[in-house]
Amino acid sequence: MDARIAPGSVRKVACVGAGVIGGGWVAHFLARGYQVTAWDPAPDAKDKLQRLVEAAWPALTELGLAEGASRENLTVAATLEDAVGEAEFVQESAPEDLELKLDLLSRIDAAAPDGVVVSSSTSGFPMTDMQQRCATPERLVVGHPFNPPYLIPLVEVVGGEKSEQWAVDWAAEFFDIAGKHVIKMEHEVPGFIANRLQEAIWREALHMVANGEATVEQIDSSITAGPGLRWPLLGPCLTFHLAGGEGGMSHMLDHFGPSLKAPWTRLEAPELTDDLRDRMVQGCEEASGGTPVAELVADRDRAVIEVMRAVDKIKESR
Amino acid sequence: MDARIAPGSVRKVACVGAGVIGGGWVAHFLARGYQVTAWDPAPDAKDKLQRLVEAAWPALTELGLAEGASRENLTVAATLEDAVGEAEFVQESAPEDLELKLDLLSRIDAAAPDGVVVSSSTSGFPMTDMQQRCATPERLVVGHPFNPPYLIPLVEVVGGEKSEQWAVDWAAEFFDIAGKHVIKMEHEVPGFIANRLQEAIWREALHMVANGEATVEQIDSSITAGPGLRWPLLGPCLTFHLAGGEGGMSHMLDHFGPSLKAPWTRLEAPELTDDLRDRMVQGCEEASGGTPVAELVADRDRAVIEVMRAVDKIKESR
Repeated sequence: MDARIAPGSVRKVACVGAGVIGGGWVAHFLARGYQVTAWDPAPDAKDKLQRLVEAAWPALTELGLAEGASRENLTVAATLEDAVGEAEFVQESAPEDLELKLDLLSRIDAAAPDGVVVSSSTSGFPMTDMQQRCATPERLVVGHPFNPPYLIPLVEVVGGEKSEQWAVDWAAEFFDIAGKHVIKMEHEVPGFIANRLQEAIWREALHMVANGEATVEQIDSSITAGPGLRWPLLGPCLTFHLAGGEGGMSHMLDHFGPSLKAPWTRLEAPELTDDLRDRMVQGCEEASGGTPVAELVADRDRAVIEVMRAVDKIKESR
Repeated sequence: MDARIAPGSVRKVACVGAGVIGGGWVAHFLARGYQVTAWDPAPDAKDKLQRLVEAAWPALTELGLAEGASRENLTVAATLEDAVGEAEFVQESAPEDLELKLDLLSRIDAAAPDGVVVSSSTSGFPMTDMQQRCATPERLVVGHPFNPPYLIPLVEVVGGEKSEQWAVDWAAEFFDIAGKHVIKMEHEVPGFIANRLQEAIWREALHMVANGEATVEQIDSSITAGPGLRWPLLGPCLTFHLAGGEGGMSHMLDHFGPSLKAPWTRLEAPELTDDLRDRMVQGCEEASGGTPVAELVADRDRAVIEVMRAVDKIKESR
């Protein structure tokens, strides 16, 4: 493994699968100045990919391209093997079909140079399940992006049972250098972190529509005019830390704790044990870096105003 | 009921309860130019309220105050009866304790002038449960705000079994005139709409922390660097409409439908029936006003960039 390339030295990236997510990765890596080789089995894949990159480019230009970044650095390969044969990093973004992923990842593993890390965009399959047919499964990790991958910074990195720690660490470092916000997970959890959270919202929304409790439009505007304005600066935990007023999360849990038992969602809450309470309070202290609630409130207020203005600007220009 | 005041003619608003939410309402109504009378039983309520209004005022000034708006228009009353006796609208924001709400709302109902609408900030109790002891329950409605009520536009308006439709309509119109984004619900659902959605996230987050699957910091950053950047412009439904690429929600449901059965959250999904599928597809058509996905994608991209910049600006100034 001495020949392993340093994450910061990577120039050639292969993207296998070029739909909305794979194509989004292509756009991201091009904008960050990489040489990108893409492959997708769809007959119209090349045209679709070019349209997607064209559509993304103004946004990427606006955000600032890396030195040497160019749409010309994209090659659409004729075969998967051509796409990954000289890659220094591979990102797989095939449809969510386990059999397909098993097959594709083993082919990528067979064709990619030794020691090159292979990352899957899967939105939910554990790598443990997907790496079964690979000859060198230790270099496979999940690198789960969010749509669109060329704009949303988050990538969740986690290995499977046969993944080695160096591969997880390498991928986390590479994504960080490639301009992403990385969450390196210690354990495999189905759906990772952000998808579990947004899937909980999504499923509750589907239940509400199925039961005639709310319309799609009401659900969406309840978020865009409500909690959605708070979440870009503070996540759900720190948001509720502020809901506790000067007493923060501890006051919040003592005050609203009983509503955890209320039928406010179809999801049952965990028991609010002393241990969970302490973890939440301690976690908010750490996540806020000990910043007093009053300062966080002032920051949130300014952020909500700026976010509302940002959104108004887009709406007005429609 | 002929003497009923028009929502647009209201000048005098009473706020009962002056904690984080009640105080936030006070700040909002003051900024919109109303005369506000507040009451809260806590001995230090007046000081706390004044601190809260002081803290909110810069943000409200930045957003633009209504003509005649002034912090001088606040009166802290000595009794609940003094606070609501001449009110043209009453907003109750007591702690979430049903017995307390039952008592308080009946006292407000007894003391407020005939025909004046009384709205509760409750984050989850159905008005049907809270209006039981009122002599004139027909004028009571839920007007559920989001923290901070002086900034987050959303108010969910819904009546109870004994509420009359005129009161629900009146409250919806009043809140709209008072600068809020109103969702007028047809049916009582525990937790209303936005709280059901954010409660689903919150409970999943608590489960993850309780099980050591993620830390508070990972949960928050998975939202702030991930889906939280998309939600201020497009809610969860339109966000997934875009995840379907050019095929929109119908492609999305056909493609990701199976993952509804995946253990991605502790919340079970509903059966994806043809009827639910059609409602989601049709709902996205309506919510997007038929705007093609490609245009929505361009809007989202610009919104995500603006929102990231807005948040960066706040973070840099810390």
